[in-house]
Amino acid sequence: MAGIEISPRIKLAAKREGMDATKVRVGAHEIGGDRVVVIAGPCSVESREQLFEVASAVKEAGAHMIRGGAFKPRTLPYSFQGLEEEGLKILAEARDLTGLPVVTEVVAPGDVGLVESYADVLQIGARNMQNYPLLKRVGEAEKPVLLKRALSATIEEWLGAAEYILAGGNANVILCERGIRTFGKLTRFTLDLAAVPLLKEVTHLPVVVDPSHGTGHRQLVAPMARAAIAAGADGLIIEVHNEPEKAKSDGAQSLRPAGFVSLMEGIRPVAEAVGRRI
Amino acid sequence: MAGIEISPRIKLAAKREGMDATKVRVGAHEIGGDRVVVIAGPCSVESREQLFEVASAVKEAGAHMIRGGAFKPRTLPYSFQGLEEEGLKILAEARDLTGLPVVTEVVAPGDVGLVESYADVLQIGARNMQNYPLLKRVGEAEKPVLLKRALSATIEEWLGAAEYILAGGNANVILCERGIRTFGKLTRFTLDLAAVPLLKEVTHLPVVVDPSHGTGHRQLVAPMARAAIAAGADGLIIEVHNEPEKAKSDGAQSLRPAGFVSLMEGIRPVAEAVGRRI
Amino acid sequence: MAGIEISPRIKLAAKREGMDATKVRVGAHEIGGDRVVVIAGPCSVESREQLFEVASAVKEAGAHMIRGGAFKPRTLPYSFQGLEEEGLKILAEARDLTGLPVVTEVVAPGDVGLVESYADVLQIGARNMQNYPLLKRVGEAEKPVLLKRALSATIEEWLGAAEYILAGGNANVILCERGIRTFGKLTRFTLDLAAVPLLKEVTHLPVVVDPSHGTGHRQLVAPMARAAIAAGADGLIIEVHNEPEKAKSDGAQSLRPAGFVSLMEGIRPVAEAVGRRI
Amino acid sequence: MAGIEISPRIKLAAKREGMDATKVRVGAHEIGGDRVVVIAGPCSVESREQLFEVASAVKEAGAHMIRGGAFKPRTLPYSFQGLEEEGLKILAEARDLTGLPVVTEVVAPGDVGLVESYADVLQIGARNMQNYPLLKRVGEAEKPVLLKRALSATIEEWLGAAEYILAGGNANVILCERGIRTFGKLTRFTLDLAAVPLLKEVTHLPVVVDPSHGTGHRQLVAPMARAAIAAGADGLIIEVHNEPEKAKSDGAQSLRPAGFVSLMEGIRPVAEAVGRRI
Repeated sequence: MAGIEISPRIKLAAKREGMDATKVRVGAHEIGGDRVVVIAGPCSVESREQLFEVASAVKEAGAHMIRGGAFKPRTLPYSFQGLEEEGLKILAEARDLTGLPVVTEVVAPGDVGLVESYADVLQIGARNMQNYPLLKRVGEAEKPVLLKRALSATIEEWLGAAEYILAGGNANVILCERGIRTFGKLTRFTLDLAAVPLLKEVTHLPVVVDPSHGTGHRQLVAPMARAAIAAGADGLIIEVHNEPEKAKSDGAQSLRPAGFVSLMEGIRPVAEAVGRRI
Repeated sequence: MAGIEISPRIKLAAKREGMDATKVRVGAHEIGGDRVVVIAGPCSVESREQLFEVASAVKEAGAHMIRGGAFKPRTLPYSFQGLEEEGLKILAEARDLTGLPVVTEVVAPGDVGLVESYADVLQIGARNMQNYPLLKRVGEAEKPVLLKRALSATIEEWLGAAEYILAGGNANVILCERGIRTFGKLTRFTLDLAAVPLLKEVTHLPVVVDPSHGTGHRQLVAPMARAAIAAGADGLIIEVHNEPEKAKSDGAQSLRPAGFVSLMEGIRPVAEAVGRRI
Repeated sequence: MAGIEISPRIKLAAKREGMDATKVRVGAHEIGGDRVVVIAGPCSVESREQLFEVASAVKEAGAHMIRGGAFKPRTLPYSFQGLEEEGLKILAEARDLTGLPVVTEVVAPGDVGLVESYADVLQIGARNMQNYPLLKRVGEAEKPVLLKRALSATIEEWLGAAEYILAGGNANVILCERGIRTFGKLTRFTLDLAAVPLLKEVTHLPVVVDPSHGTGHRQLVAPMARAAIAAGADGLIIEVHNEPEKAKSDGAQSLRPAGFVSLMEGIRPVAEAVGRRI
Repeated sequence: MAGIEISPRIKLAAKREGMDATKVRVGAHEIGGDRVVVIAGPCSVESREQLFEVASAVKEAGAHMIRGGAFKPRTLPYSFQGLEEEGLKILAEARDLTGLPVVTEVVAPGDVGLVESYADVLQIGARNMQNYPLLKRVGEAEKPVLLKRALSATIEEWLGAAEYILAGGNANVILCERGIRTFGKLTRFTLDLAAVPLLKEVTHLPVVVDPSHGTGHRQLVAPMARAAIAAGADGLIIEVHNEPEKAKSDGAQSLRPAGFVSLMEGIRPVAEAVGRRI
């Protein structure tokens, strides 16, 4: 591993010789094993009808888990802030309907218990990656945590954030690369795919990739999903909406259900080409 | 103002024609008025002795307020996390001793009441700039809020964060430029001083500058403090430590008391040169 | 193509409806066709023995073209600056030996004739992407041009540079993504793979990827090569050295011949998975 | 200088103990001495009338040198490329008219002799900072060189570029900070003013600042000019146009003559406040 060294103060998240990679179990699935796991759904839970339609569609296309936000961190207070507990209930119903586990974001320490009572995986969003009271609180949770990289976090700061959760006693941390902020103007963020093999060198934690936020354009999601798997990602998280042009958030980067079917078809042979399966 | 336009959805933070600049009153001082306000103190409150020594020194040198962290957001869980309530008590005692108002950081919505009971200004750190539950909570506080810019926040995202606090009913928001993350390697961050005159074009809120975090090197603090005032800043926030080589955090960027005396001497003529005073 | 628009002033490089993708012919190969083209060789031509050994090895492993620098743009004047014309001669001999066409960099307008007399493809390096006199001169050359992206060039600036070459009359331009400069510290640059599908939306020119410079670490080259192909790249340019620890430049990112064999084995199934071949 | 170390391989540009700061003499002026030198003029030389009008105006306002581009590096080949030798002649006439020395850009090694025959200072633009054949050529020139920082150059890369000129035998190098590329959207670049005091720690070369390119907005030029001087800059280079709305390049960031008069008035007291004069 000449040339790629991280701080020796990162203890629990660091890979040590002879160590097995961490596999995070979620329902019937394992993130970090042979199978590449696909999490799909809308940016925001907007209504029962919307979520059920999308959840059924992504299940049919082969997704393994549902995503959808009930608590939405938005740049302005006047934007749709999410359905909150009502949204969590709809997510839980969608899980009952489809059998797919639910991944959803939590934004405040005081909400962790509530979100955990409905969700299967707690998502920490990019803007909260260094919200340490929140990290400490999910460190005490029973459910796995999907930890998104902050917009300008170095790899070591990101692993430092994981360290808070691990040190709190929660061993089930999934890292999620979702694009970093650079000077680029034509994409929303710059998806740092080299972070995937780099993380495989320095940490035992599984890594998933979000090509929806990472690019901001529907057209770029499927090629970057294929690239993520080829680079060694353990999973994908993909935004899908039944009517992207009416979405309350992130419409431009959301696939339609047909686009998601096509994405799934495209990633299967790539997964096999790198010795994995979907 | 041709060429510098911000989103029309930023309502409360935006400058409108004929509007007066906001002046935030803190004790006997006003941030945003003729006088450039200087806030100084250690990164972390480490002990009663340390804080008292630094507070007395900065007062004598002419500082208007004390800074010091009791809740510290640190990259790793193993680093000193602050003295918490004990630190707040020491800060309040230092205020009694010196007569200087206290600026200190709050990192969790549940701590706002506690911090507010000791502090005069609530600081939101860079890593929490988009911690919206925290912004909403300080929007309900009685005390002014010093809102630091996130490491990779655009001007509009920063004003969006201010908008949350203003929309919550707290009109006393002070913006603080503290450096952005760029490719630079010899400085800790890149201090974006052009943000100061730019903000003066688009918002009525006062702007202070943190050249300590913004550069990461003691040697660069005084020249950048002078530059900040020349660019139109309404205040400075400066790290000072009695023994920087023993500091629990940020030692390399902390001035010694003698360095702070010299900084104060250097900024006075610059303030006068731009029609202000210290 | 909603959402991805480039300046209408980019005329010759822009994709227009119904237009075929440009295929650049180099010897027996075509860049931009079904076959993914692999260019491999050392950063610098250091000696006849070194280049012949590497060229033979990469040929045997299946590379389609040789790379190697004779004119080296180095950060300091005291670093090895390349063998210049002697290096070009060695490259031409290596072509005779292996039958593989030669890609090499040209750094001054006055050298274009010389380099063209030996090379099959003229490389414009990242640091010269906006060296307009050089671009104008290679626009008049007979040989194809591989145009690397500057360290902080936007997509539009890069296409603007291509436009200079196309406007000069040279239709054979190959774009090369080689990593952009960001705040990242553990990799040398950030490989912007999303540029590949994005370019496929906006230009007809072929795109190759350089995962060696893009990451700076030998361990990351093979996974990012696979990812580049999965993202739709038309080719790869890979640094290979017989003794990387003794290389005069870029040793840490150079594969050994055995590593290159393994890279070639790894990319074949990925190319097939996306409907192409090596 | 604890904490700010540059590569020991940077020899000629590095400051060594006991060394005097370099003063570059241009006509009657010295860059790097007590006096802060102001260079002003249009982005491009567009016509004799335009340049004479601007040159007379900036002279009257107190500028020490004229700037104006005859060879323009433009993003697209269809943009105005400069008047070339005709522009150089007009610049020389403007010098005769005003007595002010001329600073102008050279973009190709083959043009250095020509440009040198008309100009007093050779400017190397940001896009050519790592055009090493050009740096080597101006290293042999008789005239001083103003070396702009590349859009994403680290301090060490910039000093490496200076090292090429110094190693070539030309001791008269002036560094020019003109803004770096970051994620910021409301300004054209991010003016890295901390580079000024940082350079003063590590190099003996004088440093000037370009707040016109550095911000891209006329409104921000005067405050950032004041800030640059307060930070310790040895000079300013400012774009001024008689009719910015009709400028062939950079109109939005060009001051009108009246704006330049006001800038000059504003910087005088700041220069005095830091112990210098204009």
